[in-house]
Formats: sequence, structure tokens, C-alpha cells
Amino acid sequence: MNEPRHPEALQTQQACAAPVVRDLAGLLDALRASAAQRDRDGGHAAQEKQWIADAGLLTLAVPREFGGLGARWPDLYETIRKIAAVDSALAHLLGFTCLQVVSVNVWGNPEQRARYLGGTVEGRWWWGNAVNPLDTRLVASASGDGGFLLDGQKGFCSGTRGSRMMTVSAHDPASGKPVFAVVPTTREGIAVHEDWNPIGQRQTDSGSVSFAQVRVEPHEVLVRADTPYASLRTLVSQQVLINLFVGIAQGALEEARGYVNQHGKPWISSGVDKATDDPYLIQRFGEMRLQAVSAEALATRAAYALEDAWQQGPALSAEARAHVALATSEAKILAHRAALDVSEKLFDACGARATHAPLALDRFWRNARVHTLHDPLDYRVRDVGRYALSGTLPEVSLYT
Amino acid sequence: MNEPRHPEALQTQQACAAPVVRDLAGLLDALRASAAQRDRDGGHAAQEKQWIADAGLLTLAVPREFGGLGARWPDLYETIRKIAAVDSALAHLLGFTCLQVVSVNVWGNPEQRARYLGGTVEGRWWWGNAVNPLDTRLVASASGDGGFLLDGQKGFCSGTRGSRMMTVSAHDPASGKPVFAVVPTTREGIAVHEDWNPIGQRQTDSGSVSFAQVRVEPHEVLVRADTPYASLRTLVSQQVLINLFVGIAQGALEEARGYVNQHGKPWISSGVDKATDDPYLIQRFGEMRLQAVSAEALATRAAYALEDAWQQGPALSAEARAHVALATSEAKILAHRAALDVSEKLFDACGARATHAPLALDRFWRNARVHTLHDPLDYRVRDVGRYALSGTLPEVSLYT
Amino acid sequence: MNEPRHPEALQTQQACAAPVVRDLAGLLDALRASAAQRDRDGGHAAQEKQWIADAGLLTLAVPREFGGLGARWPDLYETIRKIAAVDSALAHLLGFTCLQVVSVNVWGNPEQRARYLGGTVEGRWWWGNAVNPLDTRLVASASGDGGFLLDGQKGFCSGTRGSRMMTVSAHDPASGKPVFAVVPTTREGIAVHEDWNPIGQRQTDSGSVSFAQVRVEPHEVLVRADTPYASLRTLVSQQVLINLFVGIAQGALEEARGYVNQHGKPWISSGVDKATDDPYLIQRFGEMRLQAVSAEALATRAAYALEDAWQQGPALSAEARAHVALATSEAKILAHRAALDVSEKLFDACGARATHAPLALDRFWRNARVHTLHDPLDYRVRDVGRYALSGTLPEVSLYT
Amino acid sequence: MNEPRHPEALQTQQACAAPVVRDLAGLLDALRASAAQRDRDGGHAAQEKQWIADAGLLTLAVPREFGGLGARWPDLYETIRKIAAVDSALAHLLGFTCLQVVSVNVWGNPEQRARYLGGTVEGRWWWGNAVNPLDTRLVASASGDGGFLLDGQKGFCSGTRGSRMMTVSAHDPASGKPVFAVVPTTREGIAVHEDWNPIGQRQTDSGSVSFAQVRVEPHEVLVRADTPYASLRTLVSQQVLINLFVGIAQGALEEARGYVNQHGKPWISSGVDKATDDPYLIQRFGEMRLQAVSAEALATRAAYALEDAWQQGPALSAEARAHVALATSEAKILAHRAALDVSEKLFDACGARATHAPLALDRFWRNARVHTLHDPLDYRVRDVGRYALSGTLPEVSLYT
Repeated sequence: MNEPRHPEALQTQQACAAPVVRDLAGLLDALRASAAQRDRDGGHAAQEKQWIADAGLLTLAVPREFGGLGARWPDLYETIRKIAAVDSALAHLLGFTCLQVVSVNVWGNPEQRARYLGGTVEGRWWWGNAVNPLDTRLVASASGDGGFLLDGQKGFCSGTRGSRMMTVSAHDPASGKPVFAVVPTTREGIAVHEDWNPIGQRQTDSGSVSFAQVRVEPHEVLVRADTPYASLRTLVSQQVLINLFVGIAQGALEEARGYVNQHGKPWISSGVDKATDDPYLIQRFGEMRLQAVSAEALATRAAYALEDAWQQGPALSAEARAHVALATSEAKILAHRAALDVSEKLFDACGARATHAPLALDRFWRNARVHTLHDPLDYRVRDVGRYALSGTLPEVSLYT
Repeated sequence: MNEPRHPEALQTQQACAAPVVRDLAGLLDALRASAAQRDRDGGHAAQEKQWIADAGLLTLAVPREFGGLGARWPDLYETIRKIAAVDSALAHLLGFTCLQVVSVNVWGNPEQRARYLGGTVEGRWWWGNAVNPLDTRLVASASGDGGFLLDGQKGFCSGTRGSRMMTVSAHDPASGKPVFAVVPTTREGIAVHEDWNPIGQRQTDSGSVSFAQVRVEPHEVLVRADTPYASLRTLVSQQVLINLFVGIAQGALEEARGYVNQHGKPWISSGVDKATDDPYLIQRFGEMRLQAVSAEALATRAAYALEDAWQQGPALSAEARAHVALATSEAKILAHRAALDVSEKLFDACGARATHAPLALDRFWRNARVHTLHDPLDYRVRDVGRYALSGTLPEVSLYT
Repeated sequence: MNEPRHPEALQTQQACAAPVVRDLAGLLDALRASAAQRDRDGGHAAQEKQWIADAGLLTLAVPREFGGLGARWPDLYETIRKIAAVDSALAHLLGFTCLQVVSVNVWGNPEQRARYLGGTVEGRWWWGNAVNPLDTRLVASASGDGGFLLDGQKGFCSGTRGSRMMTVSAHDPASGKPVFAVVPTTREGIAVHEDWNPIGQRQTDSGSVSFAQVRVEPHEVLVRADTPYASLRTLVSQQVLINLFVGIAQGALEEARGYVNQHGKPWISSGVDKATDDPYLIQRFGEMRLQAVSAEALATRAAYALEDAWQQGPALSAEARAHVALATSEAKILAHRAALDVSEKLFDACGARATHAPLALDRFWRNARVHTLHDPLDYRVRDVGRYALSGTLPEVSLYT
Repeated sequence: MNEPRHPEALQTQQACAAPVVRDLAGLLDALRASAAQRDRDGGHAAQEKQWIADAGLLTLAVPREFGGLGARWPDLYETIRKIAAVDSALAHLLGFTCLQVVSVNVWGNPEQRARYLGGTVEGRWWWGNAVNPLDTRLVASASGDGGFLLDGQKGFCSGTRGSRMMTVSAHDPASGKPVFAVVPTTREGIAVHEDWNPIGQRQTDSGSVSFAQVRVEPHEVLVRADTPYASLRTLVSQQVLINLFVGIAQGALEEARGYVNQHGKPWISSGVDKATDDPYLIQRFGEMRLQAVSAEALATRAAYALEDAWQQGPALSAEARAHVALATSEAKILAHRAALDVSEKLFDACGARATHAPLALDRFWRNARVHTLHDPLDYRVRDVGRYALSGTLPEVSLYT
């Protein structure tokens, strides 16, 4: 009998294995090797993005009917988490390519799904994201044939640099509504700027993009559905962030563990012979692990809730969708805190010499700090609190 | 196809239903109604224990082959959690009856299993626990026929008062080893004392028991196995505690929610019309829920890990067992903290009038405080930290 | 030259000595001896209140010109803290007698000050407080001669039972304004009820008082001044609470220290020979002390700020008064948290046997819990945050 | 009458003014203006160090008898705190120049004190520190005339680059004892390396120094006294660190305040019109301020304890000195936590755009993180805990 098992429970007993790619471990080693250097350099990680594409990961979210891996959400997010543990910037790029794939999947008509999802499989396309909803500077003008002309700018366009395709949202003053579309990144009139210069997540290619009379063909226009099922897209996006945070926490913990085992010396008045016997250091690792474990448990719980809702397809009710949103907010709060705390405590565990700049061990904190600011933590807590106090479920919004 | 689903994920979308008893909700209402009064009175809850027995819950851990409910561990613990939310003392009694059932199940020979497990089903037996391993005052003398005579005392014998059967451990000076046995609580020479008077968990019938030349028949002697499988018993016990803590946190949160919705008034300078709109109160409920949710998630994770190990039976490896122990310690730490914090914050949510003694709203904190002291939290954290820092898994001990 | 010294700094080097009474240590020992018993019994501590009166403490706040001790605020609060460490209920009674003395001092005319402040010295009067501003059920009717008749009820009248004099506020429907007065507690028509039954602070005599046609003589009417100086009265009151909280934290820490040194046993897997060498127990005491020390430091800082403002007398500016209010809120937040945390952690330090009810070691937490709910902590934090973010100082209110 | 006043209390009511230099505000503005740029560049801040020297601050710790400012410790540390709020690297350099001055003051003979302390006043000398006690690679060989030859290396020599004089410790294999001396930084054989490259505190000139047959004249040898008074030097050093941490916390809070007031926008679902009215943002500022205020209060308390001990001079008892060490450890723990927490929370307050790298707002956290690792926080807590649990005072050590 094929007794259903709790997959997370198994994780406590065996090395997790994301079954979807052949040599994920090899890829992780390769990314880890240059992560500190690339954090300093910033810019575009063309070589590493090629490795990820070659590993077949760009089709994680493409349904099997189009030749993709069609990973279940818990598996997809586990993969992102593992990559985030060694390089949260590239994990973000992968997660956001999956997100654009989902956008096409839920908003596209059958023809669009076939073209873009199939194309992603055949062409190993990276996707860029020019859908930042709070930035309304990009204007769409109907061209009369069902297409549009785009003019203006868009900021924080993660993954656009080096991408083959991108999704775009623009404001149409005539209709007062947003327009969504897919366009090739190389289309005439599109200029991707190299102006992304943050304190962390430096290789997410999240610069601005300007559009000068950019043509959108009628068949490229996506019709955003507002069903509970289609709006799962926002939760897909939020869970990418969650698993980046969890991955950062796990990566920081792993770095700390490795560093102390390799370089740690017992404190002069500790009375122990080696650092790994220091009672207080042990306690710090205990607390760091507890944060990582709790955050991962809630991330897994949210991913299963999403998977369950996803399987319900267009029949998904608004209430069921809202429960996924609640679980997502709960996971995001814990993951936010775990990423920051563990990456800060890493240094208390490793000591003064770990602050040598070339080690770039502060990249975990800087990455976490940049990425945990998409939306204010306090309003996530408010959503959870409203449910706890009044039973009010989160409404669909740009972030929930 | 019957796709395996993550049961906990479902919990975010529908009212949980412990499927094992018919009218659990009715039982919970009945227990809740008198919980505050019984907290003040202390003593023995004969009536309420009868209700629990009548609901069929005493056979939760009895395998189906003996006519019991044979609940899976996650389901069993969910039931305990629900009861603990309204009355953590009675939940403790039920959990410890399950624990004695498990003791017979893993240590007993086929005849003993049939007699005691079958007897539990037929006779609706409550079980007492006189196995406190740190109390070595009870002495066993071999009677030559394979049986023993017991003399001395045992403290903290949870559930013994009002029980039909009890498990006992005693020290045998001749062999230097502990002796384990099952004896009827009414056996001649056994005196159950009414000397349990703590600040919380007042109805757990955990007084001392004295033994004066108490006869143990040869067929009553249990042979404690030291296999990884048999030693899961300790983790069964620890997970009872975990789920009591989680239940207390959930119960306190539920009380706070109910109180504020019913009695809450907005603070004079809050600028809101009703308490449930107070931004800071909402935040408090958010944080309380986050603690309860996290603790429950880790409790569920540990319960599935236990279930998985349990299903492996005597073939269970020491390493696999140790991973369950690790997950158990992780869950216990979060549950410990959640129970204390939520039950303290309840008052910040409810305000000054909630301190009126007859409401006994402090019973959640007092119950949590008494119950979270079985073993020091710090050594749980040490176990987790040793694994995180050095990969060392917890050893089998009286508590892990 | 008499170089000014930072008095708190000295406290790190020598046993503090509140210089104002002769045998404070003896009084503290006597109160400590019966504190657990009296916590259980609740009710009125007539004997102990007599001891406090006999020690001369009731005149702490009476200016020297009337024969009182005229203690500086830092010294007065240190005395209250010390008493609160052994019995926070009686410390509250003393603090609130001081508060009524201050009310007369700032609101009274010269004749009233002479009569009531002098009377407190000569008669060793305990004072009760029927000024709870949120309770408007007590009605005053002008009697035509400048006096009033009082009818109705007042709740939470701390210290009224067993007091000689009381201050009262009542609502005058004719003028729409509150009326303040001093009346002897034994005046005809006043009934002090024994209906105070909370989970902690059980001997603060804070029951309700009913008034049936109670005569207030013209010379008993106080005219509440609304100057910054007179409104320091509210801060005097708040600092009484602060120092009760700090005292509770210090008392809980002291109990924990004594208990562990006397009864503590090393944990079985600790590897140390005595509890006081346990690295984690040491850390717990470190954290508990840090909370107590921080709270005391901010309490002292606020007391000096109050003293400084007090010395300025009626010339005190609103802004200077607001800075005292800010320092008071800051201290109250830390003291609130310290009292709760230390009194909860006491048990982690002492272990399971410390939950034996007759020890009543939970009284610290229960006392802290009851007393920290006068007004919501969150709105204190808001006051501090408004200043930190916008430079806005707290306005005069019933609580700030 | 010159009533002693609590100076810290005054700080709650008026802008603090470190009275010791004329235009501290101007200096702070100038340092602030280039702090972000200099954080990126690292290296040596020659111009800014000249400004500090010109402001007369290098003689803060030089007694008035030698023409110095002879600041009391609380005043000296307040000055360091203010500078640390805008530039904690330069504040460190100033603090460590004061520390070397103290070394000469307590270890030097009258002639040395006159020469070096007077020289500091006349020549506006910056001092370097090559006394890192855990680095034993520098060897001293007696030259027969009372002088020594130094050979080897020393790491973490804060302030040496660009200094005029330096203090040195070296290991003398013949005597088995350390040798202490003052030498001009330009002495032949001394090479100051530009190899300081940490993630924060980048301009503290803390590279390594190599010594090749460096001559130490007999009159340059300091005789380290081991009296309680002389060992206050270690606490002077620790309190420099404390006040750097507090300054970082205050500076981060001030940056956050300024940023939100200038750039803050209300969150889309906040329901408020401006960021400064956001209830959760207000709360964050409240908590940040509470941390800064608490840390400052304990820093001030420790500084007064030091001042009091310092005034006692060579008569200072070991016990009195130990109490200062305890207060120092207490303050350091709070300051450590405040610096990290406030500098992390700065971003939650300011939002995503504050992560733009050129703003370098992460420098507060990076500076705090580098500087809080001199010695492990956990062992500070242990010292406090040992006192709280067993009454054991901290022993004199390299760090306490």
C-alpha cells in the first residue's frame, strides 16, 4: 500500500534530494565557489546563469504537457532554497523566471501557453520581470489592432538583463487599466540599464528598463484573470521570497558550521579544548538551527497549502485561496526573521577574523536585508493578527 | 490516484477534525465549562475522567488488533492538543495513559499485550505512572518465583489516583538493575497519597505512592527492551508534553480572542472605535498566533517523524531513532516558549479586568510553567546545537 | 569640595542603604517571612501595615517643614523598590499613600497642607485612593456652602480599606467637571467593600467603595491645579508603579539566587558537580540580572528627572515636564518587561520542585502580571516612538 | 547650595553638550558629510584626523597638570559617543589614543608622564596601539642597557598608521614576561602595513606592523603595574568600545529618523497619510530608542563607576575595581545588542530604497558587527551571571 507520508518528516532523517535535476550538488558547489567574489563584483553572472539553464532548472514550473519538469511547489521551492543557501541572487533569478512562467500559465490563452512555455523548454529561456506594480511610469497606447505601444520606464526589473523574454505591465490612460504582455527582451526600443547597485543581492539584474515606442503585438497581450486561482501567482511570488530567506538562513548556518569546525579556537577563559565543545557556542548553534528549522517548517507548510490550492485549478474558492495567503504570510514572517538573525549571529559564532572583507561572510546579512524589504513585515503581522483576533482572512493584494 | 497530501497543510484551510471520536467537540465544551473552577479546587476530576473514558479515548494508543483506536501518532497528538487547549491537566492524564499503553506494547510479551491492551479496551482503564526514573526510593526484592516484592515510595506518580492499573519501576539492589512491572492500583499494600499541590496542572493526580510489601506476580513483570524501537517510548512521552504545551498556547490564544471580542474596549487614546481595530492589539494577536502556529508545525513534524519510525518497528535503526529525538527536542523548545509567552501575553491582550481571580485566566501560564520544568530547556537547546555544530545526534536518555 | 557624584554608580559598589528609616532591613525580613502565606490568604495586612507605619515610612513624601521625612524622589523610590522586592502589595500601599500626600501637597491650600500633611506625620495615617479617573460612577452635588454630597461607587480604590483618610474624585453634573476632595475614610455613608480578588497583588486593599449621601466639607475640597508642576502628580504615580515592577524583578532574582544556592542540583547530563557551576544556569542568571539592572537604571534616571523637575516648583515649564514624562514611559516599559520576564525565568532557574504551591514562588509573576496592566504597554511604546520619530513629546494625560 | 545633580537626568531635558571642545557640532557635521564615501574607500583618513586633532580632542585624557583637557570619564565617553554616531571608525581612533595616554599615565614614571603626556598636548600626537595581548609574535631581546630590541610582527594595531607615537608589547623569552614600551612610529625598523580590510570599521588603521631590530631606549620602557588602579586601563579600553557601540546605535537611529522624515512614504495599506503617522513605524522607533536609551544609561552608569574608582587613585581596592568591571560588562552587553539591533532595524524603518549602495546605510551594522567581536558576548554574560548567582566578581583579565 502506498501510504501517504509527510515529506517534511522524512527530511529529518535523510539528506534531502530535490529529484528534479541530475547534478544539483555539482551546480551548488560551482556557485558557492565564486559567490563571495561575485558579491563584491556585482553585475551580471552570465556564466553561472548558463550553468543553471544547462541543468534544466528553467523549466521547473513549466507543466509536463509542454515538456517541462512540472515540479510540485514543495519540490520547486526546495530547489530554490538549496540554491539560495549558496547564492541567493541567482536563486532569485531562477525563482522569478519560474514566476513569469506561471504568469503565462495562468493568464495566457492556449496558444500563448504553447508558444511561451514550449519555448522556455526548447530555448532554455531566462525571463525578466517588468511587472513592478507600484511603478506606474510605463504608458501603453492601443495601436488599434489589439496591440500596444509602450513608452516610459520601469524600475526593479529583476532578471531582465540577460533574459530572452520578459513580462511587462504598463498603464493605459485611455482605459485606465493596466496592460500585461510578453515581449522579447531584444525588441527594438527596449534598453536594459546597468543601474542596479544595492548593498546585497547584487547579481539579480534588477536594474531599470526604458521603453521607447516599443511595439507589443496583439498575440503578446496577456489577459490578467482575477480568479482566486490566477491570483495564486502573487503567492507563488511571495513563496519565492520566503524560500530565498530560508535558504539564506540555512546557508549562513552552514557557513558558520564549516568555519567554526575549520578555524574555531576556544575562548581563552572557556575551559574547553576546542571550540566545538564550548557550551555557549553550542547554544548559539542550537538557536540558529531552531530559527532555520522553524522557518523551513512554515515554508514547507505554505508550499503544501499552495500545491493543494493549485491542484484545485480554476475551481479554487476565494476562501481557500485566502488560507494559502495566510499561511504564506506566516511563513514569510518567520523566514524574514530567521534570515536576518542567523546571518547576524554567524559572526558571534565565528569571531573577529571572520570579518575579513574578502571572505564576504556579511553577504548573507546584506542579501537578507535587501530582500526582506519588498513589503513591510509589520503589515504581514497585521494580516496574521486580524485573522487571529477577528477571523478576517487576507484580501487579494499586490503582496498577498 | 490517491496523491499523498500534507495533512498539516489542510489544517490551514478547514477546521481540524480528529476523526477518532464521535463527539470530541461536546467533550471539549464540557471540560472547558468547569476548567477554571477545577483549577482552583485541584484534586481529582472523577466525573471528567469518566467522560473521557466514555468517549473511548483511552484506547487511542491501543493497536486495532486488540480492539483499540490504533490512532496514528499525528492524530493522537492532535487529540491531546485539543483537550489541552481547554484542560491541560486532563490532557496530561490521557496522554500518560497512552504512554503506559505504549510501555506494555513495546515491553510486554504477547500474553501481556493481550491481557493489558485488551483489558484497556474492555475495561476503559485509566493508567497511572510510577516510573519516574530519577526517584530511586522504591526497592524491589525478588520473590524467587520470578516475581518481586516492592517496598518504598515513588513521587510524581501522574494519573495514579483513580487509575485501574499502573506501571512501576523499582530498584533491585541484588541485580543493581531496575525492575518494571504492571500492577493493579488497588493491590494490597499500595497507598496513593493526595499530596499533589502545585501552582498549576493541579488535577494531574501526580501525588506520591507508597508501597508496603506489594506483591508483583511473575506474569506482571515487564522486560524493558533497549532497542531503538522500544526506546521510542521516551519520545512518545516527550511528545505528549510537547502537545500539551502547544495546546496550552492555542487555548490561551483562543481565550484571549474570545475575551477581547466579548469584553474588549478600545484604549482611551487609541483613536479607534472598537478594541478589535486597535493596531497594536492586532499585532499582539499576530505574534501570539505566530508562536502557536510555529510550535504546532514543529509538533506535527515531530509526530510524523515518530510515526514513520514507529512504522518501521523493531527494524528501526539507532540513527533513524536519533533523528526523531532531534525533531522532538526542536519541537519541545518551541512549544515550551510558545506556551509561556502566549499565556503571559493573553493578559496584555485582555487588560486589567482579566486578572479577576474567579476567571482563573492565569491557569494557562501556571499550567505551562509547571509542565515545562520536567527537564531543563537549555539541555534541549544543547542537543540541537551539538547536532548543528558537530553533527552529533542525541543519545538515548531518560528524556531524549 | 563636595564633588557631585552619580549616586547610582555608587550602588554598584556598596550595599544600597535607603537612609530614611532606621531598621529597613528588619522590616523587610519581617515582611518576607509571611509574604507567601499572605499571598494565599489575600485580605488585609493590618499587622504589617502597622509595622510600616511604625517604621515612619508613611511620611516619606511629607515635606520636612511639616515634620515629614521629605525624601528626595530617588530615595523614596529606592525604598519602595526594596519593599516591593519582598512584598509588592504592601509596597503599592505605601507608594499610594505617598501619592495622596503629594496630591494634597500640590492641590491643597496652605491650611489643607498643614492639616493633612501635618496630620499624616502626627497620626501615622495610611491614605486610600478613590481617584480612579476612568470610573465616573460617583456623583457630586454642590451643597451650596462650597461643600458637596457624594453618591455612587468607585472601583479599584487602592489602600482605602484600613486607611484613615482618602482622596476622592467625583463627577459634578451641574458643572460638568470633576470634584476632588479629602475625606476621612470613616465618614458616615462611606462603605469600603472587601471585593478585591485578583490573581496577584492580593493585599492592596483595592476593592470598591460606595458613597451614600457622603458630606464633603468646604475645607475638604481640593482645587486641582493644571500646571505642569501640579501634573507631576501623575508621574509620581507612574513611578510608583515602575519601582514596584523593578522591585518585583529584583525580588524574583533574589529568590531564585537563594533557592538555587540552597536547593539546586546539577542536571544529570550537565557534567558539573553543583548547580552553581552549570554554564546555562549561570547564563540565565546573567540575563535575569541584566534585565533587573537595566530596568533599575532607567527607573533611577526617571527618578532624578522627576526630582529635578520637582525642585523647579511652579516655574516648571510644560516642555521640561514632558521630558520627565518621556523618561517615565521609557522606564516603565523596561520595568514592565523585566518584572514579567525575571519572575517567569525564576522557575527555569529553580526547576520543577519550585512549583510546590505553598512556596508561592509564582506570586512574583502574578503580582507583576496584575500590576502591569494599568495601561497598555503598547501606548507607552507609542509615546516613545513618536518622540523618536517626530520629536513629539507626550501630552499630559491620566497616565502620562 | 550646590545640590548634587544626576547629570544623566539632565540629558533628558536639554541637548547634551560636551563642554570640552569649542565646535564639536561643526566637527560632527564635517565627519558625517564624508562618512559614507570613506566607508567605501577604506584606507586612511588623514584630513579628518587632522580636524580632530585641531579640535583639541587628542588631549581629552591628558590630565590638566600636563595641559590636557583632563575630562572626567563620563564627559570623555560622551564625546566619543557623539563622534561614533557619525563615524565610529574615527571615534575608535580617538578612543584608542586616549587609551594609550592612559597607559602612559598609569604605567609611566614621572619623567615619562611629563614627556609623553606633555608631548601629546604640544604636538597633537595621535597614538597607535601595538599591545594586542593575544598576539605573541613580537619578540623583545634585552640590549643590556635597560633597553630592548624588537623583532617580529603584531596584528590589529589600531591607529598605528598615521600616528606619531605607539605603545608596544612584546614577549621577552629570557624573562618569560611581556615588555611594554613607547616608541615613535617612525623609528627605524618599524613598518606599518596597509593590510586592514574588514567588512566594517574600515578606517581604524588597524593593520599589522612589523618590527626589524627596532631599538627601544631604556627611558621608553614602561613598567606595567598590576594594582587595581592601574588595571583600570583595561576598563578604560572596554568603555571605549561600549561607547562606540552606543554611538553607533544612536547614529543609526538618527539616520533612520532623518530618512523617514525626508523620504518616508506611507505603506499602501496603512491607511495613514504620511509615514510618520504609521502606527507600526512609530512602534519601531519606540523600540529602537528604548534600546539606545537603555544602552546609554548603562554606559553612563559604568562611566560614573569608573570615574569614582579613578578618583580613588592607587588606594583603589580590588573589590571596588571589580565592581567597575561588572558594571562595564553589563553595559557592554546592552551596547553590543543595541548597536546590532538598531542598525539592522534602521532598514525596516526606511524601506527598500534605503539599500542603495551609495547611501552606505549598512555601514552602521557592518561597523557594529566588526567591533562587537573583540571578545565573545557570552563570556560577558557569564561574568554577570556568576555574580548574580554566586556573588563572584569578575577577575582582572585581558578583557575585564
